[in-house]
Amino acid sequence: MNGHVIVRTDRRPDPDAVATLAHVGVATGHEAMGRRGLAQPVLRPIYPGARIAGRAVTVLSHPGDNLMIHASIEQCGPGDILVVTTTSPSTDGMFGELFAVQLAARGVRGLVIDAGVRDVAALTAMGFPVWSRAVSAQGTVKASPGSVNVPVVIAGCHLRPGDVVVADDDGVLCVPLSLAPEVAGKAVAREASEADKIEQFRSGVLGLDLYGMRPTLDRLGVVYVDESA
Amino acid sequence: MNGHVIVRTDRRPDPDAVATLAHVGVATGHEAMGRRGLAQPVLRPIYPGARIAGRAVTVLSHPGDNLMIHASIEQCGPGDILVVTTTSPSTDGMFGELFAVQLAARGVRGLVIDAGVRDVAALTAMGFPVWSRAVSAQGTVKASPGSVNVPVVIAGCHLRPGDVVVADDDGVLCVPLSLAPEVAGKAVAREASEADKIEQFRSGVLGLDLYGMRPTLDRLGVVYVDESA
Amino acid sequence: MNGHVIVRTDRRPDPDAVATLAHVGVATGHEAMGRRGLAQPVLRPIYPGARIAGRAVTVLSHPGDNLMIHASIEQCGPGDILVVTTTSPSTDGMFGELFAVQLAARGVRGLVIDAGVRDVAALTAMGFPVWSRAVSAQGTVKASPGSVNVPVVIAGCHLRPGDVVVADDDGVLCVPLSLAPEVAGKAVAREASEADKIEQFRSGVLGLDLYGMRPTLDRLGVVYVDESA
Amino acid sequence: MNGHVIVRTDRRPDPDAVATLAHVGVATGHEAMGRRGLAQPVLRPIYPGARIAGRAVTVLSHPGDNLMIHASIEQCGPGDILVVTTTSPSTDGMFGELFAVQLAARGVRGLVIDAGVRDVAALTAMGFPVWSRAVSAQGTVKASPGSVNVPVVIAGCHLRPGDVVVADDDGVLCVPLSLAPEVAGKAVAREASEADKIEQFRSGVLGLDLYGMRPTLDRLGVVYVDESA
Amino acid sequence: MNGHVIVRTDRRPDPDAVATLAHVGVATGHEAMGRRGLAQPVLRPIYPGARIAGRAVTVLSHPGDNLMIHASIEQCGPGDILVVTTTSPSTDGMFGELFAVQLAARGVRGLVIDAGVRDVAALTAMGFPVWSRAVSAQGTVKASPGSVNVPVVIAGCHLRPGDVVVADDDGVLCVPLSLAPEVAGKAVAREASEADKIEQFRSGVLGLDLYGMRPTLDRLGVVYVDESA
Amino acid sequence: MNGHVIVRTDRRPDPDAVATLAHVGVATGHEAMGRRGLAQPVLRPIYPGARIAGRAVTVLSHPGDNLMIHASIEQCGPGDILVVTTTSPSTDGMFGELFAVQLAARGVRGLVIDAGVRDVAALTAMGFPVWSRAVSAQGTVKASPGSVNVPVVIAGCHLRPGDVVVADDDGVLCVPLSLAPEVAGKAVAREASEADKIEQFRSGVLGLDLYGMRPTLDRLGVVYVDESA
Repeated sequence: MNGHVIVRTDRRPDPDAVATLAHVGVATGHEAMGRRGLAQPVLRPIYPGARIAGRAVTVLSHPGDNLMIHASIEQCGPGDILVVTTTSPSTDGMFGELFAVQLAARGVRGLVIDAGVRDVAALTAMGFPVWSRAVSAQGTVKASPGSVNVPVVIAGCHLRPGDVVVADDDGVLCVPLSLAPEVAGKAVAREASEADKIEQFRSGVLGLDLYGMRPTLDRLGVVYVDESA
Repeated sequence: MNGHVIVRTDRRPDPDAVATLAHVGVATGHEAMGRRGLAQPVLRPIYPGARIAGRAVTVLSHPGDNLMIHASIEQCGPGDILVVTTTSPSTDGMFGELFAVQLAARGVRGLVIDAGVRDVAALTAMGFPVWSRAVSAQGTVKASPGSVNVPVVIAGCHLRPGDVVVADDDGVLCVPLSLAPEVAGKAVAREASEADKIEQFRSGVLGLDLYGMRPTLDRLGVVYVDESA
Repeated sequence: MNGHVIVRTDRRPDPDAVATLAHVGVATGHEAMGRRGLAQPVLRPIYPGARIAGRAVTVLSHPGDNLMIHASIEQCGPGDILVVTTTSPSTDGMFGELFAVQLAARGVRGLVIDAGVRDVAALTAMGFPVWSRAVSAQGTVKASPGSVNVPVVIAGCHLRPGDVVVADDDGVLCVPLSLAPEVAGKAVAREASEADKIEQFRSGVLGLDLYGMRPTLDRLGVVYVDESA
Repeated sequence: MNGHVIVRTDRRPDPDAVATLAHVGVATGHEAMGRRGLAQPVLRPIYPGARIAGRAVTVLSHPGDNLMIHASIEQCGPGDILVVTTTSPSTDGMFGELFAVQLAARGVRGLVIDAGVRDVAALTAMGFPVWSRAVSAQGTVKASPGSVNVPVVIAGCHLRPGDVVVADDDGVLCVPLSLAPEVAGKAVAREASEADKIEQFRSGVLGLDLYGMRPTLDRLGVVYVDESA
Repeated sequence: MNGHVIVRTDRRPDPDAVATLAHVGVATGHEAMGRRGLAQPVLRPIYPGARIAGRAVTVLSHPGDNLMIHASIEQCGPGDILVVTTTSPSTDGMFGELFAVQLAARGVRGLVIDAGVRDVAALTAMGFPVWSRAVSAQGTVKASPGSVNVPVVIAGCHLRPGDVVVADDDGVLCVPLSLAPEVAGKAVAREASEADKIEQFRSGVLGLDLYGMRPTLDRLGVVYVDESA
Repeated sequence: MNGHVIVRTDRRPDPDAVATLAHVGVATGHEAMGRRGLAQPVLRPIYPGARIAGRAVTVLSHPGDNLMIHASIEQCGPGDILVVTTTSPSTDGMFGELFAVQLAARGVRGLVIDAGVRDVAALTAMGFPVWSRAVSAQGTVKASPGSVNVPVVIAGCHLRPGDVVVADDDGVLCVPLSLAPEVAGKAVAREASEADKIEQFRSGVLGLDLYGMRPTLDRLGVVYVDESA
């Protein structure tokens, strides 16, 4: 039952897997992982169109207090994604432009925060993507201890520092470090398969036929009925 | 108490009424209909600026299961709008790019879903509009039966297959087939009237005067008070 | 225990303070005010990028009834912001294009409403910014009395008519008239200080060092731990 | 597109079916109906332990306005349940002791309201059960028209006047008039079957065996793994 | 723009008015006050049946921090009600048995808190009533300053220290000190009037007739329709 | 990336620690654990007054599907608590009397479920305590695979099978198996200390003095102000 710690760790996912996951995105990665690892959809991007993946640096913070975000910055480096959670629910704007500038200077790719964010106009202008529970200007104090790089739960998803976080317009995915290469591999295969299906669907083929689901409907007792107006 | 059915129906609204409703949009149509038929505002568009109307093809699905969306596609044709509800509340991403390609290939105008949607970047890029309760990458199974083209309740609004659905940035409106021509007619009249009022308001006229509300305020006992700072 | 009133008031904030607050925005203004006065983050802009400040003209209305918004318009003038609350929670679309045209004709800068708004495509096109709890086409009646220019609570924030309202992508801030000059002054100082910090952060300086927080972490018992993967 | 009406109707469900449904309750009735007809769980009883069924008398009301509840009372008689919905979401306390006394005097069994209720201490003391979205003392006006005994949607459930409403600690069920006898019959059979199963379960039999689910787990690829601590 | 203060105040409502309001309760008091002053229905009692009124001692606290509750206790005396709000939304269990014992020792009647409470079994056993937004065991720190006996907004309701708070199963009402005698007087009259109406309603009289609402229905265009099943 | 599994495990917490935690309850246990491990307050008991602790048997289930609850029963034994989560948010009534009878026959102490429960009147009558997100009669299917005795996240709290779950009126606490004895020990000490404090508080001592907080207020700049009404 250790107390508040800042863990310096070199736990780091396979860079090729990270690059692949950044390319395929959340929905495909989530399917490739067996439909697991998705954070609840309360986390939304502050602007549309961003898609990133990176190593998770985690922060567990007291609500309404951003001291530990300050403490986390020097644990971040190129390609990382900062992931911030609080010990109880909060929408306070714990993160803003001043933090984003520090992180961008270190090559950090974005922020995932189960709380609020502010200065969103500035963050949008500088192209620093954030996924958050809320947008709120509510200021915070710097008074309570917390931890950096400990396992956290982010929007219902368990995440260890060094795991891969993938985020885009569809949400946020947590991929355990050890599974990242396998998930990335399956995601690439899935993407190829989907590209093929999209071609067929464009030409009018139905998924109902392509996936052979008509017998399933029949087995489940779904019947067709004709009705005239 | 019939079971799970897929209804093939030729119940189809008046195309001129549909075209008119697509032009006037949700707010005007809702007023023209006597302020009824509006879905609760939990349904939001995935991107701004779309405005559509069309014949409703309805799906009643088990939560977390998109089998019946597959089954519904071939019931859809040009000018239709697919409307998906679940038997209990869910935010799962039951619909994505692969479905949208199939529907677009058939001339379907968009989707209204009281659940989640995913691949929103791709849907936005292809211009396939969706109104949903949530954006979520959460994958679904294809295991449970449901029904297509049965009456449903979508976000508090009762809708029969073949009714008209209107959707834009202001929300989603359900217009019963039999009322569509009358609603469309009243909407056109209302729009003309509003255009005239807007001209007057631009020149400084007040609604308070134009609508003759000052006596109402007086009758209700609202009094004017002068106060200096 | 007076009844329903429409107060004609010349309570009016310092115009320089208003201009300054419109420039610095909500987050900086909120910090300058000692982290007070922020409305809860349920109020969101209908389109991104607007930033305004102005004198508050307040409306306290029955839910689902926009009679008192009509009554409020002639109390508004150049540089004002209309602020609408209801006596109990509502998401109805009490405000739309017809109101916005009237207000724009009078030089009003925008609307803050703890309820719903509609015609958002038209409002966006005409550049009339709105912060609201919901977007909803739900029409309203004009049947119940209420008050104009009385003190209100807007999303948890107490506001008197004539106070300053500031609104941007980060939310809505309420600044009491008497504090506006002081808050504006502190905000300018804060902005200058932040600009300096941003320069340092861009060059790699950490807030942890700039703010001298390492001793705080130490005092709070936060310890550093090295961990190899 | 008729306007505001008060419908005097003798649409009335089979009394034996109603009595049976009051006995079996919501969960069993819902299963007997094919898992349909359940209102969303936002409707909760104001005190535990009540279980009622009866003919629905419906009210569609403007939010924050209880005029139409007044108008509905004389449409109610012995064994009825009053069902109140609003045209847009509201938590106002539209119903209280004065209404309950009027309804109790007419033999009405209870209230289901998708809004707020007040005087809950008095209602509890007099044994008048209510299922509501909220408890709120918020008073309402009597200013806007609405309808009585028209089809409504109550917490996601479509209900016609004269249909059966069943309510207990598990929620609220809507049973169409025409299905009531069949649902009641199946519910009785189901209850008998459940009583038998409960006996077996008390003696240690598992549902996994009684329902023969082990092959299902196997077919779905669920595997057993032994793990020592 | 003063900072964090603990105000020692002898602002104190009329004791007879308080006693009357404790007797009539929230719903009647709210009506007597012109349907104003009601806190939003998110504040719920931890056990049913309590009804209290008293002088408000207010606390404005940082979320997740109960230092200022400690500081507030000695400002409380016989007949007071402690009212706790936070500077941003929180459900943390800021208050528990240890506080209740201190308050009970001073004759305080109960707590209203727009946050969480814990030890509810113990509070119930000792008969110390609490109205809160949540029940949560989440512990808090004692690190951040706040204020005691300053004006606050509690669940949407503006309250000054020394005002009257009334709380029962229907919610929480805030009555300004200066209005308390008038509100109490009107509440007594209203209660007498309601007792008379209840007698009439028990004998079968309808509110529709007693209040003379039939002409209103007619004026609003509500029409009666007969329908046979 | 293993698939769906049912883990037979003998991971089992120290029985004395479990007994102690059942005695002290959630709030004290949570404090003794350093204010960690608390599930979010969305999980509420179906009836007041229960307090239990036990070994967690975990279920990860598809929403709207209770097949895996069936599969989990035979993994449960005397003193266990069944803990059910779903792969995406759901309020369906996955658990009812038939399950409770099976579990009670095996000596299981209760259920914690991040979804819905039904038959609450029967569960209350038989004294089988449940903590759930919702009460809902919504029936479920038995069609999709899941896992038993895998690590889960329950209402924001990470839990491994064999860990200790504590539940009472204040919520649900998750205590890792390895920490249980230490937490139990600290909880006993804390309880003793609290009993002593309660005695002092009853006699009028203030926490402000007992904890020596007056210097803290002073250091934080909180000042006392006297104000006459």
